[in-house]
Formats: sequence, structure tokens, C-alpha cells
Amino acid sequence: MNIIKGFPSTSMNDYQLNTTTIIRHAARNFPEREIVYRTSEGVFRYNYAEAYARIQKMANALEKLGMKTGDRIGVLEWNTHRFYELYYAIPGIGAVLLQMNLRITPDELIYVVNHSEAKLVFVDESLIPLAEAIAPGLKTVKGYIIMTNKNLADIKTELNPVYSYENLLDQEEPYYDWPMIDETSAYSACYTTGTTGKPKGVYYSHRCIYLHAMEAICYAGISWKDSFMQIVPMFHAQGWGFFFSATFMGSRIVLPGRYMVEDLKSLVDLMIEEQVSIGCGAPAVFMPMLNYIKTLKEKPSFSGARFISGATEPPLIMMKEWKELTGADIIHAYGSTETAPLSTYNFIKPDLVKKLSEEEKWNLKRKQGLPVTGMDIKIVDSEGNELPRDGKSSGEILIRGPWITGSYYNDPRTRDSFLDGYWRSGDAGVIDPEGYVKITDRVKDLIKSGGEWISSVDLENAIMSHPKVLEATVTGVHHPKWEERPLAFVVLKDEFKDRVTKGEIIDYLAIQFAKWQLPDDVLFLDEIPKTSVGKFNKKVLREKYKNYLINSTKI
Amino acid sequence: MNIIKGFPSTSMNDYQLNTTTIIRHAARNFPEREIVYRTSEGVFRYNYAEAYARIQKMANALEKLGMKTGDRIGVLEWNTHRFYELYYAIPGIGAVLLQMNLRITPDELIYVVNHSEAKLVFVDESLIPLAEAIAPGLKTVKGYIIMTNKNLADIKTELNPVYSYENLLDQEEPYYDWPMIDETSAYSACYTTGTTGKPKGVYYSHRCIYLHAMEAICYAGISWKDSFMQIVPMFHAQGWGFFFSATFMGSRIVLPGRYMVEDLKSLVDLMIEEQVSIGCGAPAVFMPMLNYIKTLKEKPSFSGARFISGATEPPLIMMKEWKELTGADIIHAYGSTETAPLSTYNFIKPDLVKKLSEEEKWNLKRKQGLPVTGMDIKIVDSEGNELPRDGKSSGEILIRGPWITGSYYNDPRTRDSFLDGYWRSGDAGVIDPEGYVKITDRVKDLIKSGGEWISSVDLENAIMSHPKVLEATVTGVHHPKWEERPLAFVVLKDEFKDRVTKGEIIDYLAIQFAKWQLPDDVLFLDEIPKTSVGKFNKKVLREKYKNYLINSTKI
Repeated sequence: MNIIKGFPSTSMNDYQLNTTTIIRHAARNFPEREIVYRTSEGVFRYNYAEAYARIQKMANALEKLGMKTGDRIGVLEWNTHRFYELYYAIPGIGAVLLQMNLRITPDELIYVVNHSEAKLVFVDESLIPLAEAIAPGLKTVKGYIIMTNKNLADIKTELNPVYSYENLLDQEEPYYDWPMIDETSAYSACYTTGTTGKPKGVYYSHRCIYLHAMEAICYAGISWKDSFMQIVPMFHAQGWGFFFSATFMGSRIVLPGRYMVEDLKSLVDLMIEEQVSIGCGAPAVFMPMLNYIKTLKEKPSFSGARFISGATEPPLIMMKEWKELTGADIIHAYGSTETAPLSTYNFIKPDLVKKLSEEEKWNLKRKQGLPVTGMDIKIVDSEGNELPRDGKSSGEILIRGPWITGSYYNDPRTRDSFLDGYWRSGDAGVIDPEGYVKITDRVKDLIKSGGEWISSVDLENAIMSHPKVLEATVTGVHHPKWEERPLAFVVLKDEFKDRVTKGEIIDYLAIQFAKWQLPDDVLFLDEIPKTSVGKFNKKVLREKYKNYLINSTKI
Repeated sequence: MNIIKGFPSTSMNDYQLNTTTIIRHAARNFPEREIVYRTSEGVFRYNYAEAYARIQKMANALEKLGMKTGDRIGVLEWNTHRFYELYYAIPGIGAVLLQMNLRITPDELIYVVNHSEAKLVFVDESLIPLAEAIAPGLKTVKGYIIMTNKNLADIKTELNPVYSYENLLDQEEPYYDWPMIDETSAYSACYTTGTTGKPKGVYYSHRCIYLHAMEAICYAGISWKDSFMQIVPMFHAQGWGFFFSATFMGSRIVLPGRYMVEDLKSLVDLMIEEQVSIGCGAPAVFMPMLNYIKTLKEKPSFSGARFISGATEPPLIMMKEWKELTGADIIHAYGSTETAPLSTYNFIKPDLVKKLSEEEKWNLKRKQGLPVTGMDIKIVDSEGNELPRDGKSSGEILIRGPWITGSYYNDPRTRDSFLDGYWRSGDAGVIDPEGYVKITDRVKDLIKSGGEWISSVDLENAIMSHPKVLEATVTGVHHPKWEERPLAFVVLKDEFKDRVTKGEIIDYLAIQFAKWQLPDDVLFLDEIPKTSVGKFNKKVLREKYKNYLINSTKI
């Protein structure tokens, strides 16, 4: 970026945006505000003053353990008070908190720790088996700190050397002289796992997370009145960072520990008891919560609560039923590890509130939303040309802004992931004239036909709406003239096996699609290959049929 | 400040915080959201898209007029749509908007323009006489742009050369390729006028105003639903900058032009018609508005509205009556030109809402409030030692943070205005254990007696509560032993002239004050000298009586 220097200001521009400022503010001004946390032993509560005292003790302990400015330190933990403390203690001394995602494979986890060259790893007692599984592969780790209430002597582990989190705290004073850290320095790292290849490292700056915390407050309206529950795992994109926002504003914080969808009763009971008014999560959490709530005779009231739902488009029925049964709004927001994550937020502008019907409003609420201020989002065609914001032109979504990653740490894949200073999201979508972003596809699932893009997802959904079809997928395959053309794979319902023609499927599609968007051929299969998580495995089909149209007699 | 550099992050830290981002966001995402403005011809409305088109035209025009990165450009204007446009156009090209305060003396205005070396001055048609009065003294100004709907030929003025704002726009295209400006560069300058000496220049950075805009949203909860009225003059500390916050969130903006306390009917009518839900001002505006509202048969409803009141402590009765009559909350916030200005914001924490009685809550609402996050506020004694946050220890309030000024532009008074990286506010106050800041005095009005501070304001208020007293002031004068001691000046009500003794006043004070805090003497006057704006002129009394105790026989 070409940055021009203007007239010098007199502002304290060297006063850096540091995460330490956030917790110090809460401890000074909301000393008795509660932080509620659940462990295997029950629900406990302490407050910002006590948390800050422990954070300062841990900062002293880290120094004694030889940790220095810039060192990377791994954390393997659920949504606990100790993880919360480490999010201030580690970056506070100028080190980098490495988020260790429990859900990736041990091999990936080993790669992540080695790639970051972490020197120390914090491990929850319950996760010792996972730590033991990866420990032999870790090249730079010099010690493990066990997070437990038990005595270290009572913990059986092969990890070595080990320390106890609580013992370390016991030996320290609750005062630490925090440094002012250059705000462009990393405060935390999160590795994003694509469907292919090794995880890629995003190293967030203090500046990035501070600005993101403020922006989340601006849009979600977080205040001192709120009771915030940390639902998203804190080991992934810092659990979407809203706990920084909650601390910033002196909200009550509720940490459910590991007691999530596997223990819906505990989770929902905690929400009710602590009058949770805001939280973030994915439909993968909000859906089972809703189903659990439906079984309750007395429905909990979360009137006025905002639950921000990301990761994937929230089902309409889920949003409606949450509102109807509990009074809570499910609000869709869009982002990714690379965007820290908030990049769009869904709300209905006042003039649209007046203009739209109820059903139109619900449909609007399914879009990814408006870019939050500071996010420069555009869509581009395959040549990188910006496309109009007309609600029709579909292209890859490109994002830049003060909390977007500008590279992957020490990774050659950086080269293909950025375009003219924008991060390439890999998502395809449209932006309507009102500014609302709508994701339509992953770019790699789009079919590039004669310079135009065809959405495989739109075709799939249309075919699957045919009453005789069980499931269907569409993928692009090579074409000598048009570069790529769509090919449809259809599994018929048992009772219609061998009783539907290609023509019937194509005619059905022709009602909604232009002629050039229709699949060149329809192949009937007994089953569509699936990935380990149950998604259609388009890669297999694309590979197997890549030359189908070139070889076929149709051309 | 000693800043340490940690591990490099991958974030787009070079994506600068620029004011241009704010207006571009609004134009893209809230193109049809209204900006309402009043001129001498009536109330008009346009929208963010139209405003942004005019802003881009003006940016082109400024370039044609030879304005370059870093140039300072003066603006002499009321709260109009054109001032709003200039707040984006001038900083957008990398130049600096010089805020020209209409209320200071012509000599001070000449000093300000010359000190900033402004090259161009924008002048509202109604302010041509003021511009003409100062023009002969301006050394660097090369031209004047008249803001009017009339033809330039119909404007009679000695200013030379003159251009017409509207004509300039007519000649330009509504597109401008904005530069990315280093965020530490100045976007605007405001000169603060103390009671003594020349005005001092505060040159705010883009970074400063961007962060301040976000912070105001966090605390005041500004959203796309709001209708924001710009009440504070935009020529003073950018009218407290909330119009940036309103643009940031896509709120409706209402600009009353010059039609303020001099035309209360217009002002209040506009508020009612445009359903204003948020605004900032001083008791000097909210009090006459309230008095006007009291005369209305039908009281307007501003239920849910937040009116942020600064400059001075809002009278309790004013806050209560606004709430009672209109439903609006008057919220006290504290700041100054040097703090951009937001530094504290008053709200009652949830646990205090439960604990306090109604009357205690009202009293709490009169305090300056809690520091907003990022503001590092402390109180120090006369040696600069930090004092405890006990609600009792009183000292000078020192502030540092990302939008506080770190110096005065090209001004030797910078040396005495800062202490260990903090700005010295000159205000004396206390901070209670809950974090609430309470201003008790100006430091120069404190009386330093034997190393302890005595509040002149507290003594004054106490004397003035005596039923026989019309007005009173207290000032510190030299004392050979205690350095300073308080001396009281009292004007009795006519019917009690010569019928009250010194002893009666002292005895009355002795009920609330410690013996060492009581005035050494009480002098009865016919009148207390006043400044041009009607404040007690303590300076005159202090000077006249400085040796009173040394010469008096009392010692």
C-alpha cells in the first residue's frame, strides 16, 4: 500500500493498542464484576480484580520460566477461566499465544506447534492424553504446564518437565509492570485448516484484536449490562474475540468450560441461571440447543438477547424458532480465521424495516450482512476485475481492512492468497445495491464457462428439490471450447430408480436457469461419494470425470 | 514511551485508520440514509450518497486550487452540511482542517490562522463580516471560499480572491481517488483558549479521531437506528466528533445550522420532527431547551434518547426534569479540546443499580463518570505522586491514551503541560474505589496550605448556601507559614447589608469543614468582579489581596 505522510499531528500516536489495556481497565473500573466458570467440579465465580491478580502472577511466572518477548507459547484448553487469563498474561509480556485446535488431527497439531516453534505448552488436565500423543513429535517445546486443581503429584503423565498452573501462581506476587508493546506485534496465532494441505498460520497483532474488540461492540451493542457467554471454542480465532469486547465494556463473562453440545442441559441451565444476553456460535451449536429447549416444558426467556451465528448460513427455521420460543435474536455474521473473524454483520436498515414484508425480512436475515465499518469488501471476476454491486454479478469475495491477515506466517501459499492488497476469501458471492453480502458458493465449486460463472450449489439445490431425487451434486469438468461445463450427478429415490430420464431433470432445471447454465449431461449414480464429515466429495467426482465431456460423443 | 517490539504479526497493520473510510462506508452501505440540514431558507435533506459525491467533487476542487498534502485550510462555519462535507474532503486529500472558533476575539482568530499558516479559508456567507475583520491580519491565506446558495456576483465582500463553494462543485466530477494517509498525520486542528495567553494548537491525527469515533459508539451505543443531532459547534473539538460516530454506523444526521439557543423553537421543532435520539451539548444549551419545553402545552417525547452533556457538571434538577418531561437521559461526560474530547462517561454499573437509592443514583450521575476504555486516568499530588483511588484524596487529573494530545503545536507551553507522558488537565478531582471520577476544582483554584489542598469551590458553594449571602468567592493568598491560606469574599443580600459578622460566616462553615480548611478572613464586598463571560474573576482578587494576610495584623 502506498501511504502518504501528511502534516504531523500532536496526538499521542505512540500510545499503542495493547490487550493489557483492556483487562487493566476492567480490573480498575469493574473490580467486582463476575466471571463465571464451569469446571468438572461445578460452577464457580470470581471477578475481574481477582482474574487480573492471577494474570499478573502468571506474567511473573512466565518470566521466571524464561519466556521472553516474542516467544510462542501453546495452549491446549477448553473455554475456561485459565484460558481467559492466559489470553492476557501471555500477550501482556510480549509473547504470542498459540491457539491449539483440539479438533484437528494429532499430525496437524504437531505441524502447528513445530511450525510456530512454541517453547512451552499449557495443557488442561483432561487433555493430557492428547498432549502425550503429540509430545514425541514436538521439536521446540521445553515444558508443559498442567491446568488442574489437583496436586501435581496426583497427576500421572509422561509429559516432561511438567509444572502446575496453580503452583506457579502461588509463588508469585499479583503485580506486574506491563511493557508497552508495539501494536503491530503478534499477540496470538491461529492456524487455519483448509480441506487440503497443512494448516496455515495467521498471527494476529495487538492492534488487530483491539480494533476488532471495539468493532464487535459497535455492531453487537455489547455493554456493561450484558452477560456474555463464550460458546465458540477459544482455541479457534480466539473464540471470535468477543470476550475481549465483553471485558472492554465490563460485561459479566460466563465460561462454560468443556460443557457444550455434549451436555446441553448444563449449557442451557448455565445460560438461564446467568441470564446470558449475548454469545457467538455456529448453527452446529444453536440447532441442538434449540432442539433441547423444545423438550423443556418451561421455555427459557432470552428476550432481548443477541446470539451471533457464524461459520455457515443459519437455517431460517432455526432463527424463527429461537425468536419464537425464547425471544432471542439469532444474528448472522460472516468471517474466517483470516478476518479475526468479524467482517460482515446482519441487521435490517431502518428504511428496509419499513419497506419489506415479514418474509422478506427473514430472507434478508439469512444473508451474510453488511460489511462492518473499515472492512473494504469487493467481488471480482476470475481476472480480478471488480464486479458491480447489483445483487446479480457473482465473483470471488476479496477483503482488506485493519484486522485482516496480510499473509500466512512463513508459508509460500501466501503468494496465491492475496490480490492487490486484498485477501482472497475463496468464497463466491454477490453484493446487492444496499450493500448486503450474500455467499453463494466456494470459488473452487464455481464452474467457469466461457468467462461466466455458474453456481454448482444453485444447480444442486434445484435438482434436489425435484420430488424424485434423493441427492445430487454438480461439478465443472473440462470442455474444449468453454473451458468448463457443469456435469450433474443424481441419485434417485429408490421408488424412482431407472424411471427418470436426463431430459426430465434438464427440463425441470430449465424453468429457473438460463440455457447456458444447464448441465451438459446428467449421470445417475447409486450414491454420491462423501467426505469423512459427510459432505459431498466433489473432488473425487471432478477427478474421475474431468475428461468426460472431452471424450463424450456429445461435442 | 518505551515501546518493545514483539514477534511480527501477519495482520494488515499498514491499513491505516483514515476518516475517508468512514464516509465511504456510509455512502456504499447507507446511500439513501438522510442527512437533514437547516439553512436560512428552511429545512432540507439529502443523503450519504449525495454528500459523498459532493465531498469527492470538493476534493477535486481543492486539488485544482493548489492544495497539497499537509496544507492547513481554515473553516468559519456553523453546523451545516457544507462543514460536514469539508470534514471529509479536506482531511481526505491529506490536508488539515483548521477549526475557526467564532466565539473567540478577532485578535485570537488572527493568531490562530497565522500560527497554523492556513492557505485557504472557507467562510459562511453570514460570517463574511467576521472574515473581513480579520483578513487584513492574515499572513498566509491566499483565498476565500464563500459558502452560500447565492451567485457570487450577488455577494458583496472585500475578501479577495473569492470563490463560490457551489460553483467549485459544479465544475468537478464526483469521483476522487483517495490516498491512504499515514494515520498519525493531522486531519484537523483546534486551538484551545485558556483564560490567559494565546490559544494553543491541538492537531488531531486521523488515528485519534477514528478511534474516538469508535469509542463514542461503544459507550453511547450509537447505531443505524439513531437520529443524531449535531448540537455542539463543529468549530470546537470537531463538535465532539460524534458526527463521525453517526456516519460510522449509518445513523441519520441532523444539522441545525446556526439555529441554536437563539432560536429555541426552531431547534426543538427540528428535534421533534426528525425524532432525534442522540446528541451532545452543554448545560448552556440543555437548560434553555428545557425551559422552552416547559412552556409547551404538549411535551415532546424523547423516550430512550441520550443527550450527552459536557463542558461543566449538569445541574441535578436539569437532568431530572429532562427525564421527567421528555423521557430523555442527560448523560454527563468529561473531556476537553486536548482529549478529543471523550475521556469519561457516566453510567451506573449494574451492581450499583441494585445497591443505591434513587437519590444516590442521581448524585452519582453528577460525577464525571468512569474513564472510557483506553483512557489511563490518574490523580497526582503537587509532586506528581499518584494518589489512591479512595474517593477522598484529591489531586490533579492526568490523562494519557490513544486520542489524547501529546503536545501543543509549536508552542513552548508544551513543557509545563505534560508529566511523565500524561497530559495535565489542570482539573483537580478524586477517583472513588468504583473508578468514578469527580472534578472538584481547577488546580489553580485550589489552595495549597501546608502541603494539603483546600477546595475553593467547596468553600464558595457552602458560603453561597447561607440564606443571607448573595454571592461569594474564595481564593488562596500568600501566607508566611502555610504558603497559602483561603480568603473569603462575600456579597450580602441587600436586606442583610452590614448585618452579618465574619464570625457568623465562619461558624456556618465550621459545621461542614475542618478547622484548617476555614478561611483566615472574610471580606465583605459590594460586588465580586466578573470576567467577560460572567464568571467570578478570581485573578483580580488574588492579585489585589495577595499580601493581605502578610500585611494584616492577624498574624
